[in-house]
Amino acid sequence: MRFFSDNAAAAHPAVIQAIIAANTLDTAYDGDAWSARLDGAFSEVFERDVRSLWVTTGTAANCLALGALCPPYRGIICHRDAHIEVDEAGAPGFFTGGAKLMLLDGPGAKLTAEAVEDSIGLIRKDVHQVQPATLSITNATEYGLVYTADQVSALGETARRHGLSFHMDGARFANAIVSTGNSPADLTWRAGVDALSFGFVKNGGLNAEALILFKTELADEIAVRRKRAGHLLSKGRFLAAQVLAMLENDLWLDNARAANSAARSIAGAAGSRLVYPVEANEIFVRATPEESASLRSAGFDFYDWGPGEIRLVTSWDQSGEPIERLAAAIRGL
Amino acid sequence: MRFFSDNAAAAHPAVIQAIIAANTLDTAYDGDAWSARLDGAFSEVFERDVRSLWVTTGTAANCLALGALCPPYRGIICHRDAHIEVDEAGAPGFFTGGAKLMLLDGPGAKLTAEAVEDSIGLIRKDVHQVQPATLSITNATEYGLVYTADQVSALGETARRHGLSFHMDGARFANAIVSTGNSPADLTWRAGVDALSFGFVKNGGLNAEALILFKTELADEIAVRRKRAGHLLSKGRFLAAQVLAMLENDLWLDNARAANSAARSIAGAAGSRLVYPVEANEIFVRATPEESASLRSAGFDFYDWGPGEIRLVTSWDQSGEPIERLAAAIRGL
Amino acid sequence: MRFFSDNAAAAHPAVIQAIIAANTLDTAYDGDAWSARLDGAFSEVFERDVRSLWVTTGTAANCLALGALCPPYRGIICHRDAHIEVDEAGAPGFFTGGAKLMLLDGPGAKLTAEAVEDSIGLIRKDVHQVQPATLSITNATEYGLVYTADQVSALGETARRHGLSFHMDGARFANAIVSTGNSPADLTWRAGVDALSFGFVKNGGLNAEALILFKTELADEIAVRRKRAGHLLSKGRFLAAQVLAMLENDLWLDNARAANSAARSIAGAAGSRLVYPVEANEIFVRATPEESASLRSAGFDFYDWGPGEIRLVTSWDQSGEPIERLAAAIRGL
Amino acid sequence: MRFFSDNAAAAHPAVIQAIIAANTLDTAYDGDAWSARLDGAFSEVFERDVRSLWVTTGTAANCLALGALCPPYRGIICHRDAHIEVDEAGAPGFFTGGAKLMLLDGPGAKLTAEAVEDSIGLIRKDVHQVQPATLSITNATEYGLVYTADQVSALGETARRHGLSFHMDGARFANAIVSTGNSPADLTWRAGVDALSFGFVKNGGLNAEALILFKTELADEIAVRRKRAGHLLSKGRFLAAQVLAMLENDLWLDNARAANSAARSIAGAAGSRLVYPVEANEIFVRATPEESASLRSAGFDFYDWGPGEIRLVTSWDQSGEPIERLAAAIRGL
Repeated sequence: MRFFSDNAAAAHPAVIQAIIAANTLDTAYDGDAWSARLDGAFSEVFERDVRSLWVTTGTAANCLALGALCPPYRGIICHRDAHIEVDEAGAPGFFTGGAKLMLLDGPGAKLTAEAVEDSIGLIRKDVHQVQPATLSITNATEYGLVYTADQVSALGETARRHGLSFHMDGARFANAIVSTGNSPADLTWRAGVDALSFGFVKNGGLNAEALILFKTELADEIAVRRKRAGHLLSKGRFLAAQVLAMLENDLWLDNARAANSAARSIAGAAGSRLVYPVEANEIFVRATPEESASLRSAGFDFYDWGPGEIRLVTSWDQSGEPIERLAAAIRGL
Repeated sequence: MRFFSDNAAAAHPAVIQAIIAANTLDTAYDGDAWSARLDGAFSEVFERDVRSLWVTTGTAANCLALGALCPPYRGIICHRDAHIEVDEAGAPGFFTGGAKLMLLDGPGAKLTAEAVEDSIGLIRKDVHQVQPATLSITNATEYGLVYTADQVSALGETARRHGLSFHMDGARFANAIVSTGNSPADLTWRAGVDALSFGFVKNGGLNAEALILFKTELADEIAVRRKRAGHLLSKGRFLAAQVLAMLENDLWLDNARAANSAARSIAGAAGSRLVYPVEANEIFVRATPEESASLRSAGFDFYDWGPGEIRLVTSWDQSGEPIERLAAAIRGL
Repeated sequence: MRFFSDNAAAAHPAVIQAIIAANTLDTAYDGDAWSARLDGAFSEVFERDVRSLWVTTGTAANCLALGALCPPYRGIICHRDAHIEVDEAGAPGFFTGGAKLMLLDGPGAKLTAEAVEDSIGLIRKDVHQVQPATLSITNATEYGLVYTADQVSALGETARRHGLSFHMDGARFANAIVSTGNSPADLTWRAGVDALSFGFVKNGGLNAEALILFKTELADEIAVRRKRAGHLLSKGRFLAAQVLAMLENDLWLDNARAANSAARSIAGAAGSRLVYPVEANEIFVRATPEESASLRSAGFDFYDWGPGEIRLVTSWDQSGEPIERLAAAIRGL
Repeated sequence: MRFFSDNAAAAHPAVIQAIIAANTLDTAYDGDAWSARLDGAFSEVFERDVRSLWVTTGTAANCLALGALCPPYRGIICHRDAHIEVDEAGAPGFFTGGAKLMLLDGPGAKLTAEAVEDSIGLIRKDVHQVQPATLSITNATEYGLVYTADQVSALGETARRHGLSFHMDGARFANAIVSTGNSPADLTWRAGVDALSFGFVKNGGLNAEALILFKTELADEIAVRRKRAGHLLSKGRFLAAQVLAMLENDLWLDNARAANSAARSIAGAAGSRLVYPVEANEIFVRATPEESASLRSAGFDFYDWGPGEIRLVTSWDQSGEPIERLAAAIRGL
């Protein structure tokens, strides 16, 4: 059974159905009827007017936003373990034209307002040192922690005070919403977020993600940047239709709820082996090489994550018996 | 009836079926079973070992190739009407880091070896003037003409003599193959082509294109560039599966044959109104504003293409009666 | 005798003296007393508050300005023969991050407001085509013509109407001022110019040029870009001192007057052989290979400029007998 | 008395004389007689054929080299306190097109081969993580330590084993040569260095630095990149002449010897207050705010360097009584 990553899971049947239903003739690019409905659908989710663009990857969503938010000669404050730093092959450098990621520490890939404040204080205000322009956080984080609306607000306030724009990588935004119980609005723009990479692919989507702009005046520029980056698909309706299917009847929340719930069950079994509290759908567990081998031989697949640690990720389609079996296996270590 | 563009048509049912069949758990990115079959499938098509990468747009295929073929401080010789110059929002500048498109003229968006040769002769060989590194042509061209294997060879020879790498934008490569009767091998690497953007989306695909590398040593670098550009999708199997479905039983050739054939029927009706010979699936027709209005009121949709000209594009799914109706309408102008 | 280029001439003795005088200890970069006087000196020249930065080349001045004026995803309208297009090794692409030069024609490398207007009209307003952001002209032009204040105004008006920023490459600005009799203010900001590359090196300077910003809010950003491009010299006082020496007692105008006057003498001799009217310090003369060989054997050095044409450039330090000798030699052809 | 930085000192009289002597007519750019002598002069210094280019700043030398050594999608391993990371406004990102600086720790801004080795071991070999292409060290370091030929060799060996190119920022290369007693050859190419930024401005130069290429095949490409970056000055002879003056009769070594010797005197006085051993011309001294104020009121000018530390830098023109006065003042704290 695969607990490798949520980004390899199957797509939800509703998403496949949406693709089938969209397989008709319509205008190319984002001129079609499905794409036209996106802004409205997201504006409802966020309780205000937003602009939105479909893209096919989280990296594209993140870096199109960062390219518009941060000029080439400035920097983006983020966590040392942020996906944009660790796992995007330097995409921020490409999309921004060479802006610098300014790395901060903090347990579980979480930033605090204090750490951001302090780091800014250390930068000389001259032309020799790169000045930050943007703050970027991941919610839920790369280690499965979540920022609450209050925590995002504190960061948003710090960003505002220093004139920084504020980006949220929400590859697992749904998991954060479900976990915190905060509303999408409270967790983003009400807390000062300017742009959100809203992930669907890890949550039952096929190949459509969305970039949500609360700073709506950026949308036209980013639409050009999207084309220029080769991310404006000819038959965009197949992406828009996926996203709409995920939003319909809150499928995105149901899926995240399932994944989080599976993760909590496993976390309960792992107990004191947990490296971090489990607040979303990722579980980091201490395990000796022998223990990890025994889990593997029992049919569970996962990542080794540094010495003596493994990473398990649950998906929207995992629940019930298989989860209980994994929980039992961990308990039995 | 829509003759607007082939990039808005529906996807072929076999492509949809392939997506449905791929909706199972597999490894993420391009580590899956479908992606693993791509190189083999294309090597068969091209009668030699090739490396291939799926991407979602022709712009991405073109510009990932150009980014690897042309350093930032040099230039790409192409036609003034080339898609990379006219319709990609400056993507070559983005992907190459600022390389220059060096524009040549020629009827029907076609380059000749002589024109390329002459243009190179005019460049001072010093550090002040940008030196070309790459030649890029589109086959079939943006105006529906095709290069034969001999014509590509002549360009390839010129490129080789001047140390230029050679890229072919094959957004409508299938149409060119069907039209020329040349083999894929003869029309590309045997004629000196290093990299081919092999289009499927305009030919019945959903959202998968392929970049074929005959200069196979570029593949590893381009795989990194693809990730860095946000073009490495998590669930790559859904792209690979589409491409494999298009290659299976030569569906790609059948589709192109249908589109070309429809275009030929319309061309026959247009006769002396044709602006260019119709060699693929695009038809440029001289029509007064009144004539074009009458076609539109008869239910035909298309682009105005400069004063007194319209562009009609046929798709893989257009044949029979609707085509005859359009032919008749044009004949009746 | 060398009529090759004004950029190879000796530096004026006053410039050398200024360097000697600046050879004392002061603060590094542009924190010194000389640099501090620049804004004031230029504000006097231009009859309003300006911001200014020293740089060492015209290419740096041009492209630092363009990098701030034009985002990577847009374009710069300029003449096909503009220095930024022809002779800067693609520097605009580097400094802007891949923006596109949009080339227009016109005799003598001069643009008209009409040509600019028309070219904008041909661009589709969508995300596929690159939209212009900036207009750049050279005054005096690469062919020794000048724009008068009225002509610049017409272009400035067109730029304003289309929301374009407006840059002037003034590598030979002094020659244009002397030639037109217009004031520096009338020829620039009063005509809508936002940024001026103010050349000194071709006019008796050693290695200091200036970038003048009428859109003063760009100065802080460009100061960062200058550092980032490696153009913030440690001992900036040696550049500032040169510029101040050139401005003192209008040395810059005297030098340009001398060069223009020498050019006029030669032009008078060339008569109907002139390819363009001689309005600054460049003279393009029709000459057969034999004629050009005979001039060379008489000790005159110059550029061949296409078949049957030669280019002669006069410098600040050329006058009197040598000029008369050249004039006589041309008359004698 | 200024101990602020060596980059603000006066230029050596021989350098000024060289400029005066070069103030004659010659060919523009680097086509002049002085520039033509550079390769030969440096080849003698380095006991082998090298290629060299003049530039005006260390940032330009560093980043032109890095742009040629490291592709945009890879990384440069350097120290967290390296000038390229801390004090160049992100220039490496600009010149490389977005490559990543990969930061390592180590006392006194010095890297060890082990630290480099270990850091490479931590990088996953896949397309998601940025792979290093280049190693860059500063000799003497930003904290006034030097690498000996053996230490450079160990790093060069590590670089070679991992296929990394190897760059040395020698803003204070002369100080390192004098301090180590190693030959220029031993401290660079014999130890595996591919490109050296050879600093002159901090050592008595006016505004000329040099980039030395041991990997000579890079020279032609970097010459283009230099032009493209606006760093090809029209009157290059004034830069070449400075460099030649510095090399003549080993003036560069004499100057560095003077600065190092002054630093040693001060270091002797500082004794246990020293934060780092003084191996070149920078002295970091522990001093309370009161102590630092008292030094300032005695007429000594310097940088505060973090809490409780000050930085003093000696220059080529400082020796004798003023140095003794400073030494006495420090001893008297």
